[in-house]
Amino acid sequence: MATLIAYEDASPATDAELLKKAVHGWGTDEKVVISILGHRNASQRKLIREAYQQLYKEDLIKRLEHELSGDFERAVYRWNLDPADRDAVLANVALRKDKNCGDYRVIIELSCTLSPEELFSVKTAYQCRYKRSLEEDIASNTSCDLRKLLVGLVSIHRYQGNEVNLKLASSESKILRSAIEEKSFNHEDILRIVTTRSKAQLMATLNCYKDEHGCSITKHLKDDRANTYTETLRTTIRCISNPTKYFEKVVRDALKKGGTNEDALTRVIVTRAEKDLKEIMEQYYKRNSVSLDKAVAKETSGHYKRFLLALLGKED
Amino acid sequence: MATLIAYEDASPATDAELLKKAVHGWGTDEKVVISILGHRNASQRKLIREAYQQLYKEDLIKRLEHELSGDFERAVYRWNLDPADRDAVLANVALRKDKNCGDYRVIIELSCTLSPEELFSVKTAYQCRYKRSLEEDIASNTSCDLRKLLVGLVSIHRYQGNEVNLKLASSESKILRSAIEEKSFNHEDILRIVTTRSKAQLMATLNCYKDEHGCSITKHLKDDRANTYTETLRTTIRCISNPTKYFEKVVRDALKKGGTNEDALTRVIVTRAEKDLKEIMEQYYKRNSVSLDKAVAKETSGHYKRFLLALLGKED
Repeated sequence: MATLIAYEDASPATDAELLKKAVHGWGTDEKVVISILGHRNASQRKLIREAYQQLYKEDLIKRLEHELSGDFERAVYRWNLDPADRDAVLANVALRKDKNCGDYRVIIELSCTLSPEELFSVKTAYQCRYKRSLEEDIASNTSCDLRKLLVGLVSIHRYQGNEVNLKLASSESKILRSAIEEKSFNHEDILRIVTTRSKAQLMATLNCYKDEHGCSITKHLKDDRANTYTETLRTTIRCISNPTKYFEKVVRDALKKGGTNEDALTRVIVTRAEKDLKEIMEQYYKRNSVSLDKAVAKETSGHYKRFLLALLGKED
Repeated sequence: MATLIAYEDASPATDAELLKKAVHGWGTDEKVVISILGHRNASQRKLIREAYQQLYKEDLIKRLEHELSGDFERAVYRWNLDPADRDAVLANVALRKDKNCGDYRVIIELSCTLSPEELFSVKTAYQCRYKRSLEEDIASNTSCDLRKLLVGLVSIHRYQGNEVNLKLASSESKILRSAIEEKSFNHEDILRIVTTRSKAQLMATLNCYKDEHGCSITKHLKDDRANTYTETLRTTIRCISNPTKYFEKVVRDALKKGGTNEDALTRVIVTRAEKDLKEIMEQYYKRNSVSLDKAVAKETSGHYKRFLLALLGKED
């Protein structure tokens, strides 16, 4: 469930006017920006942008980009974009980062949590923005097994049905096991099973694996943790198996003592606020015995903090 | 351009009534079936099926499947399906064939001639029919390099723009050349370039290759013709580079003396009749000095022949 509290009877034209006043002249009234944009859903935000463009002949997103700054600006920017366009931007930013940092979580999240239709829209938005396909950018930014895994994940149109073939699950669990016993983590059958099977079928296979070997495959993959490919594979399996737990961990890592990872924190809150952030918050509370909004309030500050809390459904 | 001559002012209800009369009781009036279905475009055929279902509470496609037989039945069946659904059926039939025959042309044709939106619809239709994804069926029916190539082809959402980066084309042409000089036809960069680059970019790269080495890459790939993977790669490059020439060759091979390949012949005529069959016919005439309709009339017979000729825009 969503955490966003959107005011249903807001008028796009009034919102646009208030935003114009907030950014007009010297200084910006960030509180107005937060009180409006932090309480509008994706289709309302789109209507506000259109109304703003029509009334003032300027692009609201660009104007806010210019008026705001730092983590707050980046969060508002991501929040304002259409979801597919935002995911395209997030993917591109992730790919342009230092190749050695090996953080492909954005790509994994797109591939494993969006529906085929949503993923198709992200790829279309990506091409529209960057004049290249997401697949070719991933392929040219990675190599070997990691390339196979990521390009495979992002390009597959996974079957969405719930049908499960238990015999197949059992036989493919054996295939996985024998590859892992041989420490052949990049075995082509592992790649095939993880990237092409439906989620329901893959879950059945992973359950078989656990039943037969008394341990989840992700634990076995930990043996090769120093390898970016194996670690990415592990992250993928975690994200497909339980997106709520997966995102809780991303947020937990992002809020770790000794430096907040604002990029990751913003990403999870902005991309999940209209989807399943409530479940992620519950999971966070279970795992950390402190509520996510309290943790966010502690580790962030200023307008950025206020904006995130608004999206979390908690006012400061 | 299309070869199909569709009668614009046909009424779906009248067509459905005439078809009902044609299949009613003992014997079928195949000429009526041909005169109607051989002159209706995809949206008209859909309306006829709907009208037929409403009027007679039965599925026209199933009824015709039951009433007709042989190559004629198969051609009418394929023609009657929605294009995306038909492509899904063609792909499934091809995958279920003897694995050793190594004919993956259907998969190549889907991947290289459909738009991303059309390909997406085929995959959705495939899942709806077979409760599995096209990608997983390809992956489980193939292995090694062939699997990488075919899954890569069918899953990529290729960028459709015309922008070309000539520097990139030149550098990737060198990458291709060095892989081919080492006879490393399955080099991961070959797979990456062929499966992920936009058509315009890939064409620029292949042109660079030809300019620099005085010979097309497909000629160089011929050296490894006995290998199914390399041959499939060669076919892919031919299909992307020039679909008209590619389909002309499929038809030419299908009509070879010593046994017509009705499956391939039907496929090309049925799938291209509303698209570019006119260009394929012109290319056929150029290459064989005999018109395609004459060649088809010579090698086929009966209702099957009459139906194909109708789709070719030529009455018997």
